[in-house]
Amino acid sequence: MKILLINGPNLNMLGNRDKGLYGSYSLETIQDQVVAIGEKVGLEVECFQSNSEGDIIDFLQEKSAESSGVIINPGALTHYSIALRDALVDSNLPVVEVHLSNIYARESWRHISVIAPISLGQISGLGYRSYGLAMWFIADYLKEGT
Amino acid sequence: MKILLINGPNLNMLGNRDKGLYGSYSLETIQDQVVAIGEKVGLEVECFQSNSEGDIIDFLQEKSAESSGVIINPGALTHYSIALRDALVDSNLPVVEVHLSNIYARESWRHISVIAPISLGQISGLGYRSYGLAMWFIADYLKEGT
Amino acid sequence: MKILLINGPNLNMLGNRDKGLYGSYSLETIQDQVVAIGEKVGLEVECFQSNSEGDIIDFLQEKSAESSGVIINPGALTHYSIALRDALVDSNLPVVEVHLSNIYARESWRHISVIAPISLGQISGLGYRSYGLAMWFIADYLKEGT
Amino acid sequence: MKILLINGPNLNMLGNRDKGLYGSYSLETIQDQVVAIGEKVGLEVECFQSNSEGDIIDFLQEKSAESSGVIINPGALTHYSIALRDALVDSNLPVVEVHLSNIYARESWRHISVIAPISLGQISGLGYRSYGLAMWFIADYLKEGT
Amino acid sequence: MKILLINGPNLNMLGNRDKGLYGSYSLETIQDQVVAIGEKVGLEVECFQSNSEGDIIDFLQEKSAESSGVIINPGALTHYSIALRDALVDSNLPVVEVHLSNIYARESWRHISVIAPISLGQISGLGYRSYGLAMWFIADYLKEGT
Amino acid sequence: MKILLINGPNLNMLGNRDKGLYGSYSLETIQDQVVAIGEKVGLEVECFQSNSEGDIIDFLQEKSAESSGVIINPGALTHYSIALRDALVDSNLPVVEVHLSNIYARESWRHISVIAPISLGQISGLGYRSYGLAMWFIADYLKEGT
Amino acid sequence: MKILLINGPNLNMLGNRDKGLYGSYSLETIQDQVVAIGEKVGLEVECFQSNSEGDIIDFLQEKSAESSGVIINPGALTHYSIALRDALVDSNLPVVEVHLSNIYARESWRHISVIAPISLGQISGLGYRSYGLAMWFIADYLKEGT
Amino acid sequence: MKILLINGPNLNMLGNRDKGLYGSYSLETIQDQVVAIGEKVGLEVECFQSNSEGDIIDFLQEKSAESSGVIINPGALTHYSIALRDALVDSNLPVVEVHLSNIYARESWRHISVIAPISLGQISGLGYRSYGLAMWFIADYLKEGT
Amino acid sequence: MKILLINGPNLNMLGNRDKGLYGSYSLETIQDQVVAIGEKVGLEVECFQSNSEGDIIDFLQEKSAESSGVIINPGALTHYSIALRDALVDSNLPVVEVHLSNIYARESWRHISVIAPISLGQISGLGYRSYGLAMWFIADYLKEGT
Amino acid sequence: MKILLINGPNLNMLGNRDKGLYGSYSLETIQDQVVAIGEKVGLEVECFQSNSEGDIIDFLQEKSAESSGVIINPGALTHYSIALRDALVDSNLPVVEVHLSNIYARESWRHISVIAPISLGQISGLGYRSYGLAMWFIADYLKEGT
Amino acid sequence: MKILLINGPNLNMLGNRDKGLYGSYSLETIQDQVVAIGEKVGLEVECFQSNSEGDIIDFLQEKSAESSGVIINPGALTHYSIALRDALVDSNLPVVEVHLSNIYARESWRHISVIAPISLGQISGLGYRSYGLAMWFIADYLKEGT
Amino acid sequence: MKILLINGPNLNMLGNRDKGLYGSYSLETIQDQVVAIGEKVGLEVECFQSNSEGDIIDFLQEKSAESSGVIINPGALTHYSIALRDALVDSNLPVVEVHLSNIYARESWRHISVIAPISLGQISGLGYRSYGLAMWFIADYLKEGT
Repeated sequence: MKILLINGPNLNMLGNRDKGLYGSYSLETIQDQVVAIGEKVGLEVECFQSNSEGDIIDFLQEKSAESSGVIINPGALTHYSIALRDALVDSNLPVVEVHLSNIYARESWRHISVIAPISLGQISGLGYRSYGLAMWFIADYLKEGT
Repeated sequence: MKILLINGPNLNMLGNRDKGLYGSYSLETIQDQVVAIGEKVGLEVECFQSNSEGDIIDFLQEKSAESSGVIINPGALTHYSIALRDALVDSNLPVVEVHLSNIYARESWRHISVIAPISLGQISGLGYRSYGLAMWFIADYLKEGT
Repeated sequence: MKILLINGPNLNMLGNRDKGLYGSYSLETIQDQVVAIGEKVGLEVECFQSNSEGDIIDFLQEKSAESSGVIINPGALTHYSIALRDALVDSNLPVVEVHLSNIYARESWRHISVIAPISLGQISGLGYRSYGLAMWFIADYLKEGT
Repeated sequence: MKILLINGPNLNMLGNRDKGLYGSYSLETIQDQVVAIGEKVGLEVECFQSNSEGDIIDFLQEKSAESSGVIINPGALTHYSIALRDALVDSNLPVVEVHLSNIYARESWRHISVIAPISLGQISGLGYRSYGLAMWFIADYLKEGT
Repeated sequence: MKILLINGPNLNMLGNRDKGLYGSYSLETIQDQVVAIGEKVGLEVECFQSNSEGDIIDFLQEKSAESSGVIINPGALTHYSIALRDALVDSNLPVVEVHLSNIYARESWRHISVIAPISLGQISGLGYRSYGLAMWFIADYLKEGT
Repeated sequence: MKILLINGPNLNMLGNRDKGLYGSYSLETIQDQVVAIGEKVGLEVECFQSNSEGDIIDFLQEKSAESSGVIINPGALTHYSIALRDALVDSNLPVVEVHLSNIYARESWRHISVIAPISLGQISGLGYRSYGLAMWFIADYLKEGT
Repeated sequence: MKILLINGPNLNMLGNRDKGLYGSYSLETIQDQVVAIGEKVGLEVECFQSNSEGDIIDFLQEKSAESSGVIINPGALTHYSIALRDALVDSNLPVVEVHLSNIYARESWRHISVIAPISLGQISGLGYRSYGLAMWFIADYLKEGT
Repeated sequence: MKILLINGPNLNMLGNRDKGLYGSYSLETIQDQVVAIGEKVGLEVECFQSNSEGDIIDFLQEKSAESSGVIINPGALTHYSIALRDALVDSNLPVVEVHLSNIYARESWRHISVIAPISLGQISGLGYRSYGLAMWFIADYLKEGT
Repeated sequence: MKILLINGPNLNMLGNRDKGLYGSYSLETIQDQVVAIGEKVGLEVECFQSNSEGDIIDFLQEKSAESSGVIINPGALTHYSIALRDALVDSNLPVVEVHLSNIYARESWRHISVIAPISLGQISGLGYRSYGLAMWFIADYLKEGT
Repeated sequence: MKILLINGPNLNMLGNRDKGLYGSYSLETIQDQVVAIGEKVGLEVECFQSNSEGDIIDFLQEKSAESSGVIINPGALTHYSIALRDALVDSNLPVVEVHLSNIYARESWRHISVIAPISLGQISGLGYRSYGLAMWFIADYLKEGT
Repeated sequence: MKILLINGPNLNMLGNRDKGLYGSYSLETIQDQVVAIGEKVGLEVECFQSNSEGDIIDFLQEKSAESSGVIINPGALTHYSIALRDALVDSNLPVVEVHLSNIYARESWRHISVIAPISLGQISGLGYRSYGLAMWFIADYLKEGT
Repeated sequence: MKILLINGPNLNMLGNRDKGLYGSYSLETIQDQVVAIGEKVGLEVECFQSNSEGDIIDFLQEKSAESSGVIINPGALTHYSIALRDALVDSNLPVVEVHLSNIYARESWRHISVIAPISLGQISGLGYRSYGLAMWFIADYLKEGT
């Protein structure tokens, strides 16, 4: 079983972005941690990052048939990409939305996620650990069900 | 070091409430799981539930000096209890907010949390596992820092 | 079969409050009238009043298993107590919401009831008679169904 | 003394409309029940239904001088007919507004009644019994005053 | 040349309505005054009142070809009848909107007129004199142009 | 099988109204075109126009049992007639809403249709052809299903 | 008895401002017309124009004791000068608000008048004649009362 | 004559809360200062603090008959406790609302006080001195009337 | 003459997406139907689908000089792509907007189309037939003019 | 040390304005009381009133270098004078805002003060005593610091 | 040819105002720079500053006939002075609006300029250079046309 | 030192787009002018245009380390691309936002720029000269500092 780990615009710059908000780990380090958890629980993890909404949708369409779940940090697309939302719905996969920073403690327009209503759940503001927790959750969820 | 695990109004009825939303575990079962994790990582967990805003604030004021963190599911108080928010700020403790159901997939007025902006982060919609993930996070966070 | 008759904050002061809005009967007189109707139709009525949201929720949780219906005047909690709303939903009982005054002829924020959407129905503005009408209704409803 | 029982647009179709919302009684059956209550308490009931706002206002203007009260289910006019509201105010009669369905549990624009602020009170969501309760109330109210 | 003097719902009750708001003249007296001004300035006045939006639109469609101007007090239709607005636009006639009471000193939803943006102008709050002033204006306007 | 072709307020004036918005055909010409299409596909078309909301509802209530579909241009009623909406729902017929002009390129309050959410679909801005396309659609829809 | 005729900012430029909106008469011509009507009906008219909110308030404060009414075109102050509104209330004089252009057919923020709710009435969009009509009204009003 | 000095949720923690906002005095010190002023002007002061809305309402109901005024810092209840507002209205006592911090210079939702419209007045942002000023005011007010 | 048939994000997945909303035809089947209509009426149809806003704009810029009209289902871009709107305006081509599902019967943010105000018209909710009707319309429109 | 006591538009009319709202003291009497307090505590008070926003700003700019604090009742400028707000900020002086009437019990637009967020604090609704309390506060504040 | 360089309320205090926002140059220095550019390109510059909306309007009315363009920093009047906007429109001159600080990075109500819609363009946030850039632009614009 | 000159969607079509809004110069001509200014002041200019949000973010991420400033006309992305905003923030470069047309004189949704709050400043509505002015500014800014 494969899990898709998707990161949206600007997240490839982690480590160089504002560290007070996003922490000091690079995206690769974070991806490696999730892959390592995957190995422990017997799940393959395929990582993808793009600055382009269209490319993320292409990736989801291609990979969803062979996958069992999605962990996604949509970056700024969180707040307006209805097209990404529709693609996630079409995938029929369980989705966990993660954010490094606490989006509810930032500008008011970051409090709205168009992705959240169609996700299983959301982890926000727990830094790089948000990703790992999501991975542990999805492994458990796939094994045991709701 | 002690962690406060606080549950707000109606959460004592878990197991009898709408299982599609809240799952079938009782509050005691959930509390036992968190206590068990605490034992593994060397953290005491003190559990408290009340249907009264005032009692929860009293508890927080009494216990915060001797505690190192708070995991809280404020129940319906999430959406309007500024008094609870102020008490959490006054405690000077790191706070993780958890919700069994995905509050962003329910009525629009449940999308607003007055607690979220003053928490470290929030885990929403991951069912009973939300609590355990919060406990793992806070253990790690206290050991290693941000 | 038992009916719960619940009154929220400040309704214990009936008779002393603004009589133009609330009438001149005391809460006891009103409760006695409802109990008397109950006796005629073979229904026990248990009365409860509190100024505390938490105490009302406690009462509901304790009593709902042994009860068949709720008549509630939530007082000012009508307008913001999501916790009370959740408790009423959890009770799985038919709920009739009553108001002495016509809440739609007062300040605009009194036009919103967070309780109304989860009640069977609402009687507003018919003074002390609101309670008696609700009791006649619930007796008939329990006997004959929808 | 005469009571006007007025029903607005589409209520002549009761029995054929969505029964989950409006119940299975025809308008005639409901009118007969109110007339019967009237006979018991010594009040004549004149029934009127129209799909036209103008015709309802015409009826009110003609009949108000010889009448003592109004029971009205304005149907969809509830939500926008300021002209009907003005006509009810001009009649100088006590008005009780009734609704078969719980308008507060439906679309949000059905939560607003332009009639409610100028009525004595409102009964909503108690099905066909709403009418009978309104008739018992108005009989009592006319006999005993506020 | 003919002027249409149109009055909307409830204005046939003038003299019986709230005199503090609408004055004590009957509609007939007001119409007679406008007709008398018309005679002085050589303009025929055709008067029409209805409680029905549809009838007013029918009247406008029939009469506009043979008319030179409209004086209208739309009553409560002022605030929501887009159909009346469209009919007035279709008539290609100069329109003067009049109100007995000062609609800007009453409930806030009476401050909005859907008729005003397509009228030449509006006279509001000057009592029965509003009609006469509108007639003097329209006579002058037709004689001299803008 | 019969189709109801209903036109609301002011649409009887087509040909005389603003031609830039509504085109230069009369309502009769448009109705003839739809009837002609009906003859080709074996469907009777009954045409009705009224400036009165109540009359349109009366017509719908009378005819819906013997009909198989509705094509309606509600005119200005599009934007506020909840009573018409309720009547269309009660008819249990498939409804296609048409507009001559592009209501989304006009005043912002014309962008809201209270009819659209309960229709099968809407054709807006395609001029007189909107009607014909709706007729072709409904013929095909009735023959083949969704 | 004296009437104050007050014009606000930019109205001294009449004749040079956009003639489609404001007409081609100068302010002096308009003032002369009002003065002439005053002479016919035995009322003195004192004219005042200023671009300064403060100066208009000074003028009102000075003159109100010796005056019997106010005709005011507040210009742009119409939309925000709460200070002017307060000064008019303080004067205890009957106020008629006039506008050359139809403020309801222009930008939406021009639809709001903070002066209207405290005036007797308003004449808007009837061009230079607005002033004369207001003068005829106020003469009549002072002679006959409400 | 007795004055009630009431403090809402979290105000028992003064001295430990954010000193930049609330100052460094404990609640006891502040209460002692008010009591001392009371002694100087011949007024008894009864102090009460609770974290529970219900308890504050109970206290008000019990004490209002024997009291002459209320000084209240409702804490976070300022912003949503309509029940407290109703209790203050029912008490028929003059109320002065005080806040240590300037609530208008903090989060926008702290700008709204549901208590302010039914108070005599409000003192906000003047630190611990807010209480003393309110006491001096109420002493003066009770002696001299409005 | 060539018509551009453009489909936005996720529409390449038709047939696999929610069939209750979008029907069971694949995009290819729908495109073939439109091409077939084109052949009957002598119009070439060039089909394009992309999940990327930028690619759709590139396509429009390249092809518009050699084309005579656009049929577009912008998918989720309907609701926020001002860039796509600007590109359609720049193309100077007549645009018909189509939607498979009735966007007015879904989430409220799907009721807003930023494309509609600059289109000739819109067909919404008529399923796969929406495309064919748009093609018949545009053929007729190009042949005969408005 | 000098305190500036500034009063905005219309406050020179105190004693003649609505006494229910503003009391019966003249501005001079109020100013004398503040000056007298100043003498007791060794502070000079310079009084200024103007109806002109510009003049008040001029005064502030001239006097701020030689002053130690500002007590201001901005009158209607409270609600919109961003220019005055900017001038107060530029003065670098501690500011106390006072209002005779309770601005939160009047029209809703009077609830907004654009001055409050940049003041130390606000006293509202305590009548003429508001000024004296502000003076006592500022004397104390200057002597003892925050 | 003459250019009017107008500065609104509080801008005479430049150099003393918050330097992080407005820079450290005095208004005179800035004016000298603009005058110097004017000399290079053969344009006279007349400078004016006032704290009074009325005085700025007076100045504009006096000078516009002899001038060819306006550079204006309206200060706080930017956000509400409809009177100034009207005066600028009346002048028939090309207007460039400048701001020292970035008004879009400050309080949200500073994001709204009532001047911007009637200006040629706006330069915001480029510090003292904003003025010079505006002068270079207007010189070029006057020489070459749009 | 290098300056990035970035143009968003549809700006490659300059010269063919609506010339009343955007002028008649091609993008190349505009870019050449900026490059020429760069040569005069010793700054390299790298030009980039794309219709794709993702490609612009990619470009910014690649080039920012070797660059000293950004001049950007985001086209329609101005109004919704939070992802572009985040990328500009991450670049740590001074940003000047330019627009050919006056976005504040067009549709109201074009008045909002999500880019403006994180830019140094904005030049809007000054046509092709906006670019040159921005280049002169940034050269000066880099040489002299704020």
